[in-house]
Amino acid sequence: SCHSLVVEDIFLQREQNLGREGGREGIACCRYVSKAAAKPQVEFDYDGPSMKTTVPGPRSKELMKQLGQIQNTGAINFFCNYEESKGNYLVDVDGNRMLDIYTQISSIPIGYNHPALLKVMANPNNLSTFVNRPALGILPPENFPDKITESLLSVAPSGMTRVQTMSCGACSNENAYKAIFIWYRNKERGQNTPTNEELNTSMINQAPGCPQLSILSFMGGFHGRTLGCLATTHSKAIHKLDIPSFDWPVAPFPRLQYPLDEFTRENAEEEARCLEEVEDLIVKWRQKGKPVAGIVIEPIQAEGGDNHASPDFFRRLRNIARKHGCAFHVDEVQTGGGGTGKFWAHEHWGMDDPADVVSFSKKLLSGGYYHKDELQPDKPYRIFNTWMGDPSKNLFLSEVLNVIRRENLLEEVTRSGKALLNGLYELQAQYPSILSRARGQGTFCAIDAFDDATRDRILLKARDKGVLLGGCGDRSIRFRPALVFKEYHVNLFLNIFNDVLAQHK
Amino acid sequence: SCHSLVVEDIFLQREQNLGREGGREGIACCRYVSKAAAKPQVEFDYDGPSMKTTVPGPRSKELMKQLGQIQNTGAINFFCNYEESKGNYLVDVDGNRMLDIYTQISSIPIGYNHPALLKVMANPNNLSTFVNRPALGILPPENFPDKITESLLSVAPSGMTRVQTMSCGACSNENAYKAIFIWYRNKERGQNTPTNEELNTSMINQAPGCPQLSILSFMGGFHGRTLGCLATTHSKAIHKLDIPSFDWPVAPFPRLQYPLDEFTRENAEEEARCLEEVEDLIVKWRQKGKPVAGIVIEPIQAEGGDNHASPDFFRRLRNIARKHGCAFHVDEVQTGGGGTGKFWAHEHWGMDDPADVVSFSKKLLSGGYYHKDELQPDKPYRIFNTWMGDPSKNLFLSEVLNVIRRENLLEEVTRSGKALLNGLYELQAQYPSILSRARGQGTFCAIDAFDDATRDRILLKARDKGVLLGGCGDRSIRFRPALVFKEYHVNLFLNIFNDVLAQHK
Repeated sequence: SCHSLVVEDIFLQREQNLGREGGREGIACCRYVSKAAAKPQVEFDYDGPSMKTTVPGPRSKELMKQLGQIQNTGAINFFCNYEESKGNYLVDVDGNRMLDIYTQISSIPIGYNHPALLKVMANPNNLSTFVNRPALGILPPENFPDKITESLLSVAPSGMTRVQTMSCGACSNENAYKAIFIWYRNKERGQNTPTNEELNTSMINQAPGCPQLSILSFMGGFHGRTLGCLATTHSKAIHKLDIPSFDWPVAPFPRLQYPLDEFTRENAEEEARCLEEVEDLIVKWRQKGKPVAGIVIEPIQAEGGDNHASPDFFRRLRNIARKHGCAFHVDEVQTGGGGTGKFWAHEHWGMDDPADVVSFSKKLLSGGYYHKDELQPDKPYRIFNTWMGDPSKNLFLSEVLNVIRRENLLEEVTRSGKALLNGLYELQAQYPSILSRARGQGTFCAIDAFDDATRDRILLKARDKGVLLGGCGDRSIRFRPALVFKEYHVNLFLNIFNDVLAQHK
Repeated sequence: SCHSLVVEDIFLQREQNLGREGGREGIACCRYVSKAAAKPQVEFDYDGPSMKTTVPGPRSKELMKQLGQIQNTGAINFFCNYEESKGNYLVDVDGNRMLDIYTQISSIPIGYNHPALLKVMANPNNLSTFVNRPALGILPPENFPDKITESLLSVAPSGMTRVQTMSCGACSNENAYKAIFIWYRNKERGQNTPTNEELNTSMINQAPGCPQLSILSFMGGFHGRTLGCLATTHSKAIHKLDIPSFDWPVAPFPRLQYPLDEFTRENAEEEARCLEEVEDLIVKWRQKGKPVAGIVIEPIQAEGGDNHASPDFFRRLRNIARKHGCAFHVDEVQTGGGGTGKFWAHEHWGMDDPADVVSFSKKLLSGGYYHKDELQPDKPYRIFNTWMGDPSKNLFLSEVLNVIRRENLLEEVTRSGKALLNGLYELQAQYPSILSRARGQGTFCAIDAFDDATRDRILLKARDKGVLLGGCGDRSIRFRPALVFKEYHVNLFLNIFNDVLAQHK
């Protein structure tokens, strides 16, 4: 581990030098396209989209037919050539090269085939981590505490020194909810051990062993699709239809007007209304005999339509949770990892004690949750499964974090994000009948189309011109570029997007 | 892909030749320890356990303290040196080398650091699959249909041509349950589209949109620990205590007497009793307004104590499911992948149409479920998440399947399994006050200790003598070796185990 740090330092210096050639002094262009830096550019990124066919092209259609024999392919956009994809560009199997502003549903942190990640694969010391997946909860590898410390704990949210790894976002939230329920019942139970009645009834899914506790969530929220998570997800009916659920309270999420600073009074009123409803629901569900053990919320509702709320809203909500003895769980699965210009979106709230639990996945390459000390289960095997994460993903995460630090990517995101949001403001002023409600934090931006049909048409047209975007909510377009999306890429995107909108008019 | 097949063929021939040197002609020894084949042996396996300290040793204890600052370490056995582990031997951080008959809770298919898997890492064509994890449901890689066909579909259960990949066992079962609920409601709904009332109520977790359907499971069953799975898991109270659950029916699983063929009449009666109860529960829950949409069962209840039932029991249960319109879901997360001597344990039932859904994970290196055509959701995004599996694990799985075929590992497992079970019969005859109820299929064996304290003491003593075993149920010892566990290893184990028992007496 010491040895590999030295090797890294050499790379660090070399790449910083390369970085300087491209120019960091506020010039509105990117080293990737600077003529002076033609060589390193090729290694990391292409110089723009390049389209050969409409998308999906003939090869993608052929493969879709093949896969259609095995799975429902209704959600598949096209098939990819990941070998040829680089940096911000995703290449498809028909040779189309697209500027990727959706990044596998926001899960590619530093672009495709980043040399730092390829280097992880080239290191023979890492081989056995890929080949021998351990049952982390019982037989962890020697370097596990060190790896976790240098990766996940080095970016731990304020007030948290403990982290539980998991394999994906849904498992992270499911297990975070379990930790919350266990913590809540232990509080109620005091120092007493569980009764025989509790132990026996738990085996047949009945109270008091399986108590009727609840998690309060928000309309428009998304926290995953497994049955526990799904009971807190309220973004689209098709996600929930036909699946049994829990009778858990659902509070309204503020519907704010944008830009936020032009509607501070109206927005504050809306937020106050929602917070009042939260307290009412907590009281109501306690009276119903289904007390709220935890509150779960995204810092920006992503799947639900990129809905923002003010730092003040979150601070008050956190206080309500504390007042009523509910754990406050901030779900950063989509917002975490730097896209908002801070590593965690909740850092924008400016709190010393922002949460009791923070869950993550996607850009962090595998899942998990940080938690306060008191949320750690009292006994082993209460939060447990076979794999409990994947150390090979943590190897990549360590490198991702090194790249973020070495290349100051959070600053870059803040800069690109400003350019992106300003561009979106200009476009919605230019095309007021098509676009409205531009909003964002860092490059985690969105804008609304006139209606869903318009939105979907714009997404397809942009794709045929070489720009990959995602939809969310009813009629929103969401921007989820990698952290290596620079001002240069913003300008490239804005030009293409402008063409799409001009043709749409 | 054509190219890589050619390369594989060359390797295949070479390794088959190596294999022949070791001798396959029924000699009761293993090529790994044959003097004539000393060279390849070093590459794959060690020649026996080698203990330096008691376990956990001082270095493990040090690391446990370090990790204890970050997580609950109560379940951790010791820390591992996966680099030095080989074949059937797990090496710990104190230099102890143990014969591993537990294999990371049954999840290591062909031993540690198998050369075929290391080769996957050495192939530069595979690099990008590790570095760029796709959102498989929307942007799969070009080789995804081929890879799935040559890996998962090449071992598809009888009657199934469709498979949905997932990241872990719990997610596999959660999503299989969802597919069952969707299928069941679509049957009830006929050709009609969902009503607005259904769509609207689903958003707030209420019926009819979120209907009160249930999954019938069995006492002693284990299907995972996320909230949906946990409602069907009934192996230990500590897994379920304090977690809200669903009011779903729990049937008794037959408590048979072993050896099965000495108690056919008694066991048949017990099985009939359980099947009757299953039908009663289905009727009762339908009357309650919580109809049983699916029945989930393990071919051998693993966590619950290695409880077996006869092929006849499963055939009748499958018919009950069909009769009542319930999907029949066979959970092969622990039994799948060859440990019972067939690739799927349900193949022992000898049925053309054994199930509607078969879920897997562990030895298959990532999760998923096979299903009948009609279990495929009618619309995209109903069964969906960001990653939906991990193609890099499928690369390894392809190689694992190649090794299983090339080395006839299922036959080897059957042979080793017989030797193991016969050895266990002898030991329980020799130590009747300590051991009883030896049982198994292939190397998927178990034996009961007098009580839980005896069991735990035996497990620790065996470990200090260099043999890693697992517990399950109240007082069972379970055997879960890799598929490369040969007769030679059986004999090695039996000698050590005999010593442990002799000292215990």
